Amino acid sequence: MGPHPAVAAIRLAVRRVLHDVLTLAPPADPAGGPRSPLVLAACSGGADSMALASALAFEAPRLGVRAGGVTVDHGLQEGSDLRAAEVAGRLRALGLDPVEALPVTVGRDGGPEAAARDARYGALDEAAERYGAAAVLLGHTRDDQAETVLLGLARGSGTRSLSGMAVASGVGGRYRRPFLGLDRQTARKACLVQSLPVWDDPHNVDPAYTRSRVRHEALPVLEKALGKGVVEALARTAQLSRDDADALDSWAVAVEPSVRDDSGALEVAKLYALPAAVRRRVLRRAAIEAGSPAGSLFARHIEEVDRLITGWRGQRAINLPGRVAVHRHGGRLVLRQG
Amino acid sequence: MGPHPAVAAIRLAVRRVLHDVLTLAPPADPAGGPRSPLVLAACSGGADSMALASALAFEAPRLGVRAGGVTVDHGLQEGSDLRAAEVAGRLRALGLDPVEALPVTVGRDGGPEAAARDARYGALDEAAERYGAAAVLLGHTRDDQAETVLLGLARGSGTRSLSGMAVASGVGGRYRRPFLGLDRQTARKACLVQSLPVWDDPHNVDPAYTRSRVRHEALPVLEKALGKGVVEALARTAQLSRDDADALDSWAVAVEPSVRDDSGALEVAKLYALPAAVRRRVLRRAAIEAGSPAGSLFARHIEEVDRLITGWRGQRAINLPGRVAVHRHGGRLVLRQG
Repeated sequence: MGPHPAVAAIRLAVRRVLHDVLTLAPPADPAGGPRSPLVLAACSGGADSMALASALAFEAPRLGVRAGGVTVDHGLQEGSDLRAAEVAGRLRALGLDPVEALPVTVGRDGGPEAAARDARYGALDEAAERYGAAAVLLGHTRDDQAETVLLGLARGSGTRSLSGMAVASGVGGRYRRPFLGLDRQTARKACLVQSLPVWDDPHNVDPAYTRSRVRHEALPVLEKALGKGVVEALARTAQLSRDDADALDSWAVAVEPSVRDDSGALEVAKLYALPAAVRRRVLRRAAIEAGSPAGSLFARHIEEVDRLITGWRGQRAINLPGRVAVHRHGGRLVLRQG
Repeated sequence: MGPHPAVAAIRLAVRRVLHDVLTLAPPADPAGGPRSPLVLAACSGGADSMALASALAFEAPRLGVRAGGVTVDHGLQEGSDLRAAEVAGRLRALGLDPVEALPVTVGRDGGPEAAARDARYGALDEAAERYGAAAVLLGHTRDDQAETVLLGLARGSGTRSLSGMAVASGVGGRYRRPFLGLDRQTARKACLVQSLPVWDDPHNVDPAYTRSRVRHEALPVLEKALGKGVVEALARTAQLSRDDADALDSWAVAVEPSVRDDSGALEVAKLYALPAAVRRRVLRRAAIEAGSPAGSLFARHIEEVDRLITGWRGQRAINLPGRVAVHRHGGRLVLRQG
């Protein structure tokens, strides 16, 4: 008799990613010795990432891969260090080695969720470098993806913000999300049938957090209004939007040299002839190149710059985040940081 | 003292569209005589379209445009003919001429909402042709747009399905939506301060209708979870998605001849080299050309065809709606209707 279907599903998902990692970093020692590639599971102790860690512990030795685990102690609650040590113990009990709890200090930039995320990825990056890990696996599921798409939708920043999380991201595609096509219920079931203890982060049900409200309030009502397939539809939207955004970005990169004059200034007439979606991407890239921080540059900023081209009536300079001013002069757009 | 801000807003929105219509169909007779262009307001009797009709009645004579009105009697409720006659009376009272109630028979294809919409646009098309109207104005607001984006999101069909309603659509851009940037509250307020009687369609609050559930259940909860700007963000998503979809469609059209061989068959190697977003659009166009009905062709169909290119392992032919079969043979994709 094979494993429970939920366990089979999480293992298959991890196996596929390990195969992919191995094609990029073939094992020097097929027996899984110290020179084999190391893959780390990032684990909060919740069901999704405990399921991930268990599947990694099962699959890695069969493929000559070393499997380790890390857990981030955000230090946001009393006793979080003890909890992190407990999660580390559970990871060791699965057979992962090395295992480490990574304490971080969460700042305040961008709100509590963004600050915690920045601190977490900082620690994971550092650990991945220090261990020379070939990959770091993250436990995000299809439900997390659906939530991320809704959060992106609320920003109203277009196709890129609807594209959710990538299957692979970070330096060299270091972060991998094997469960992005699996639903949360499968991960929970896999923990249950493997008798894995899981810890539910109280932030996940705290209505002070936007993602928690999306998960517990918005998505259930959307499902009621639109039908059961909403999570799947949102996840599919993420993939399609990512592909669309990638294609349009590549178009903007390819066309950019041809819309600049010899001095590198953007020529209004040539920009005007581009499709709006491509023109706005060229403008966005130019603004970032001039020093405007990508994270502060919203769709409405680019729209305003675009009106220097499509709705010209002698406007004054447009001020962008990062003290970048854009003005139109002699059929050219000039971007300058003040 | 000028008009109430809500009335000023609806009039400005209509005036802009009339200016645009006039650049395409200049008035032969600036005094607004019988040879002037005719613009029709499509009016359900609800607040949005009554506000629209009132703004058209006010603005048209000032621009040498004739203003008429039509209302569609869907025949779905007892006494709907009397109500349509009443709405027609209200349109005449605003000074619109000609005014006509258009009775339609609603079929069953695609569900009650789609069937009613098909019947309605059929009648509006017919009336526009018969009157030789330069444009037909529709009262859709930014709130309707946000609802349409959410309904498109639930389909999970990507950027085009997120692009909502166009400012101009139909044959030659005949249908115009002047209120797409205004919120519903502004239209209601404009009716109130002008003492215009409005009729609330019971379908709008009937939870049997998906749009009604989106309006009364999903959007309020989304606003609570994500913040007040959700409607605006959804409407902005529509515009950005439309531009993205237009640009990618134009790319697919431009590249299509270059991926076909002399016999017109699609070459797998050349398709493979395209960005996924462009390749899928080329495949979709080819499927429609081969006889697959656009409305039945979903993202998952195209994904399956795409796997003949990106995940080839000797699959059998893929069957698409409209009895179109796609198979891969000798490095070519062959689409054939059976």
